[in-house]
Amino acid sequence: MSVVVQNIERADPSIIKRMGAAGVATVHEAQGRTGLMTSNMRPIQQDFGMAGSAVTISAPPGDNWMIHVAIEQLQEGDIMVLAPTAPCDMGYFGDLLATSAMARGCRALVIDAGVRDTKDLRAMGFAVWSTAVSAQGTVKETLGSVNVPIICAGALVNPGDIIVADDDGVCVVPRETAESVMEKTQARLDAEEAKRQRLASGELGLDIYDMRPRLAEKGLKYV
Amino acid sequence: MSVVVQNIERADPSIIKRMGAAGVATVHEAQGRTGLMTSNMRPIQQDFGMAGSAVTISAPPGDNWMIHVAIEQLQEGDIMVLAPTAPCDMGYFGDLLATSAMARGCRALVIDAGVRDTKDLRAMGFAVWSTAVSAQGTVKETLGSVNVPIICAGALVNPGDIIVADDDGVCVVPRETAESVMEKTQARLDAEEAKRQRLASGELGLDIYDMRPRLAEKGLKYV
Amino acid sequence: MSVVVQNIERADPSIIKRMGAAGVATVHEAQGRTGLMTSNMRPIQQDFGMAGSAVTISAPPGDNWMIHVAIEQLQEGDIMVLAPTAPCDMGYFGDLLATSAMARGCRALVIDAGVRDTKDLRAMGFAVWSTAVSAQGTVKETLGSVNVPIICAGALVNPGDIIVADDDGVCVVPRETAESVMEKTQARLDAEEAKRQRLASGELGLDIYDMRPRLAEKGLKYV
Amino acid sequence: MSVVVQNIERADPSIIKRMGAAGVATVHEAQGRTGLMTSNMRPIQQDFGMAGSAVTISAPPGDNWMIHVAIEQLQEGDIMVLAPTAPCDMGYFGDLLATSAMARGCRALVIDAGVRDTKDLRAMGFAVWSTAVSAQGTVKETLGSVNVPIICAGALVNPGDIIVADDDGVCVVPRETAESVMEKTQARLDAEEAKRQRLASGELGLDIYDMRPRLAEKGLKYV
Amino acid sequence: MSVVVQNIERADPSIIKRMGAAGVATVHEAQGRTGLMTSNMRPIQQDFGMAGSAVTISAPPGDNWMIHVAIEQLQEGDIMVLAPTAPCDMGYFGDLLATSAMARGCRALVIDAGVRDTKDLRAMGFAVWSTAVSAQGTVKETLGSVNVPIICAGALVNPGDIIVADDDGVCVVPRETAESVMEKTQARLDAEEAKRQRLASGELGLDIYDMRPRLAEKGLKYV
Amino acid sequence: MSVVVQNIERADPSIIKRMGAAGVATVHEAQGRTGLMTSNMRPIQQDFGMAGSAVTISAPPGDNWMIHVAIEQLQEGDIMVLAPTAPCDMGYFGDLLATSAMARGCRALVIDAGVRDTKDLRAMGFAVWSTAVSAQGTVKETLGSVNVPIICAGALVNPGDIIVADDDGVCVVPRETAESVMEKTQARLDAEEAKRQRLASGELGLDIYDMRPRLAEKGLKYV
Repeated sequence: MSVVVQNIERADPSIIKRMGAAGVATVHEAQGRTGLMTSNMRPIQQDFGMAGSAVTISAPPGDNWMIHVAIEQLQEGDIMVLAPTAPCDMGYFGDLLATSAMARGCRALVIDAGVRDTKDLRAMGFAVWSTAVSAQGTVKETLGSVNVPIICAGALVNPGDIIVADDDGVCVVPRETAESVMEKTQARLDAEEAKRQRLASGELGLDIYDMRPRLAEKGLKYV
Repeated sequence: MSVVVQNIERADPSIIKRMGAAGVATVHEAQGRTGLMTSNMRPIQQDFGMAGSAVTISAPPGDNWMIHVAIEQLQEGDIMVLAPTAPCDMGYFGDLLATSAMARGCRALVIDAGVRDTKDLRAMGFAVWSTAVSAQGTVKETLGSVNVPIICAGALVNPGDIIVADDDGVCVVPRETAESVMEKTQARLDAEEAKRQRLASGELGLDIYDMRPRLAEKGLKYV
Repeated sequence: MSVVVQNIERADPSIIKRMGAAGVATVHEAQGRTGLMTSNMRPIQQDFGMAGSAVTISAPPGDNWMIHVAIEQLQEGDIMVLAPTAPCDMGYFGDLLATSAMARGCRALVIDAGVRDTKDLRAMGFAVWSTAVSAQGTVKETLGSVNVPIICAGALVNPGDIIVADDDGVCVVPRETAESVMEKTQARLDAEEAKRQRLASGELGLDIYDMRPRLAEKGLKYV
Repeated sequence: MSVVVQNIERADPSIIKRMGAAGVATVHEAQGRTGLMTSNMRPIQQDFGMAGSAVTISAPPGDNWMIHVAIEQLQEGDIMVLAPTAPCDMGYFGDLLATSAMARGCRALVIDAGVRDTKDLRAMGFAVWSTAVSAQGTVKETLGSVNVPIICAGALVNPGDIIVADDDGVCVVPRETAESVMEKTQARLDAEEAKRQRLASGELGLDIYDMRPRLAEKGLKYV
Repeated sequence: MSVVVQNIERADPSIIKRMGAAGVATVHEAQGRTGLMTSNMRPIQQDFGMAGSAVTISAPPGDNWMIHVAIEQLQEGDIMVLAPTAPCDMGYFGDLLATSAMARGCRALVIDAGVRDTKDLRAMGFAVWSTAVSAQGTVKETLGSVNVPIICAGALVNPGDIIVADDDGVCVVPRETAESVMEKTQARLDAEEAKRQRLASGELGLDIYDMRPRLAEKGLKYV
Repeated sequence: MSVVVQNIERADPSIIKRMGAAGVATVHEAQGRTGLMTSNMRPIQQDFGMAGSAVTISAPPGDNWMIHVAIEQLQEGDIMVLAPTAPCDMGYFGDLLATSAMARGCRALVIDAGVRDTKDLRAMGFAVWSTAVSAQGTVKETLGSVNVPIICAGALVNPGDIIVADDDGVCVVPRETAESVMEKTQARLDAEEAKRQRLASGELGLDIYDMRPRLAEKGLKYV
């Protein structure tokens, strides 16, 4: 059955913003190394990171009809997350759809498929993480669903989950645990800064983390 | 049999230029979604598009001899298009060959294989779309052909066809239909601009394209 | 058995520096087209090349413990080269480890696996060639070895070998043959400059290399 | 947190058996074309199909410790389903583990990674669907979990879900909907038999499904 | 435009049969090493070869409607050859369609996409070469064409071309040149038999083909 | 420089035979989990294992000339191991070369490239492990070397090394350590048999290997 779920809950915008600033690697660690999409999910822009609230799209391969449906559901700060129901590298999304999404306050797409007009998208400031770039056009014939749970690039995404994305990839944080993950993220950020200074001064991780005894116990030989 | 076809017809330069400005996605749509190379054909430069007239090269895997032969056939505005006769990721082409091709007015290569000296090529303003980057050298032992029909990254290319290439990939427009494809391309460009303004103002594709009745008829449920 | 070899020999720094300036394609040709890593070994930065002395790391998939061990062995001008013992795309390395490596004079990593914090690494000026980018965290549970021979992306690397890396990929030059390879590299650089000028003036490779008789003998037909 | 969920619910064995007989393609259709694993999940044996109740395993890459833990949880008719937490092609499972699993009534494994001893496994009658075959050994160092929800080859699997597997791949049927899916599966089987006879007698799908008017309406031309 | 070309010419059945007996490798050599599909086009059965006359199908990704249309065009001895207009691994074809095709005298499918019911297809004696096996269902929404030129797995196929397929892959022989290719094929078969006997008796290819002088001239050293 | 090394040492035939009987997984474990080729090295036959002494071939991509040279160097019990100098999936080897190799007592090929005539090779009893099957023909134009060290599918192979190959893949055992590896292999075989019987009787690996305390210490929770 094809459905559009209209009223979804979103996480606290201030937490979303802080997660975007912390970045994928740190958030992923903070939530126990879960929620990461596969490494073929790559940005079309460089040196940029952000976070947003997921509006999910389940679409047939080669059919982008549901993106039009999803755009109506977008709110300020949302990220569209699209998973095709079978592997597909076609170009579901381009500058016209981005124009429409931006008019509703959405500034990013995560898609386990292709996008096109990538030069224009970069120029517009619309961020994309995708598994392909392709000009190949899609049809509008078969229904899918909006705001249902999807599996996108190996990660489960529920509507309203927080999507953190940067040059390292894309990580999904469930809305329900956002606050506690952000706490752990902040703890990591704080601890990392201290470690960074010690490492920059020439101290070794072997000493900072007291690894030498355990390495010896496991049998490492220096020759 | 290995042949070099010396006199090939080329399309009208003004049409070629306009297609380059229109870009791959629009031209591909305008000619009925045909002629696109596979999505692993990627540019080595960013935010750049162009079009040219194809000089085709069929070469054995790991053998770039025919590029030297092809360069003699180049004219101002040509793009070399090389397909190996079996999959190969070796570096067929570098800065010396680019220097030679540029001396004849050619400023781009499309190759279903590898290239090298990519930093230099970018600095020289020689554009490349390839399926690999590799320093691996090739030999000059076995003949191929120049200006015969080839299949490059899944697309049929005849010598003199128009090659449109940008960040989204590479599309081939048969020389014979160039004019009519350009007409349809222009029509799309004109229509897109109007749509872009409506979408930017917040109108939805659902309404602009009158999709709601058909979505309902297919059974889409809003919950 | 897991070992750390502490005293390794390194090549002459002046030769290493000259190889970095010559670039991968030229060095690879100069040593008889050997030593190149596979073409999926790609840089995270653009338009940058260098060379260094290899400190090798053999590590289990998903386990970056040995990087901490290796960092203690680093000297000014070293490049870390890591090969997992089975295919792995996880993020072994990020900004904290880079901070530590840079404190010891190391400015690059070559890894047949993933890295993370890529934006930060670029900002820090720490160069990386990798086969993946991924935020996925690794464990510190199983030993590997440092400064033993490894096979990284299809190339044999001995500790102290020269690693030449740029936009075209990564090439390994054995320490023992570094001097003679550099001589041949220099000879190529000199010869290339002369050829470049002739090609730029419009002379054809067909004539410079006297290819026409051999092409005719092999049976190439001009039609 | 690493957990072993000991008491899981399983579906009615008679339904599981009937689903195995119906086969993946029919069950997949019957549940609305959902639940299919990706097409790189392939059997090591040929012309064999079955179904079972999932005991799920989430394991680190290259670490098969949790399989030992999972075996204790197996009951007659269970299928182990293992997803590594990052892509891995190592050989997690061989004849000794199969011997142990068979002693507890389990006769199949579905794994998004590698297996080994494949000749022995076929000889023992232990069925495997995997994404790789590899002799590469794994370690026993890092915990994972047993009987938690996992994403295996793109499909969500909850412990106790029905796994249907044959030469076409692997499909997951949620335990909660097993009965209704089986009803729809049976309806399809019944309908297919009637259609098969009509098609075998030479009647065309074009006529049986009354496709001609719709094809004409869409614009199909016969020339 | 979507078309069905109804009257296509076919090659002489006796030549088709002889090509099937000769096998892919020999025919491919005989026609100058052209026409071979890429090596990911694999049979679902083993130790079986054949040839047939191509009925071509161009279909959208994930849409098998045109197969129903194509079946009406089949004659005794035809092979269906399907290329999707974008990469797709879904299961376009199963036992019901095979039943229908066999009722019209067609016994094989070559498809650059997926098939399902593979166990049944083998049992029915319906041969398949495909680039995937997948139970994933397709829709019937968008038109394609039947008996137009297609590019299937890197090879150009015109309707009525001869398709030769066995365990080594699939080769396309243009109908127009079938006779001359068969002559060359026969010449190779005859020559191969003589060579086989000499090689079996222990004579070396080095001597039979008089390779030693040329190897020496190129500089091969025996040490 | 291209060389043929004529006099190579081989391991004790009785050890080679015993390793073939032990199989890849056990030998690989016995030598410390080293020497395994990548998992895309697959057999063309099923349920068959063996071992032999390596005659190595380094060949250019798409050029099988050196196989003719290598055949002259073959002795009873040898296995040819070919690595192209760049990735290549073409069909280097077929039934004629196999006939010639068998006339010299060689019964297997391991090749990081393609083979053809696979049905015939199976019928002849000539075993092949390859990374592709392809009818694509190769040329005889460029020299390579025979019996030099090569890297084949990620593993270093020296001439005279023992190659163990079966359904699980291919493992390389250095000639120098063959005896000690065989001792460890035998020890594993003996130990495995005892374990197999305990596991078959229903004892758990958790108890046999005393894993429970360490699992608890690491924090595994049973719920």
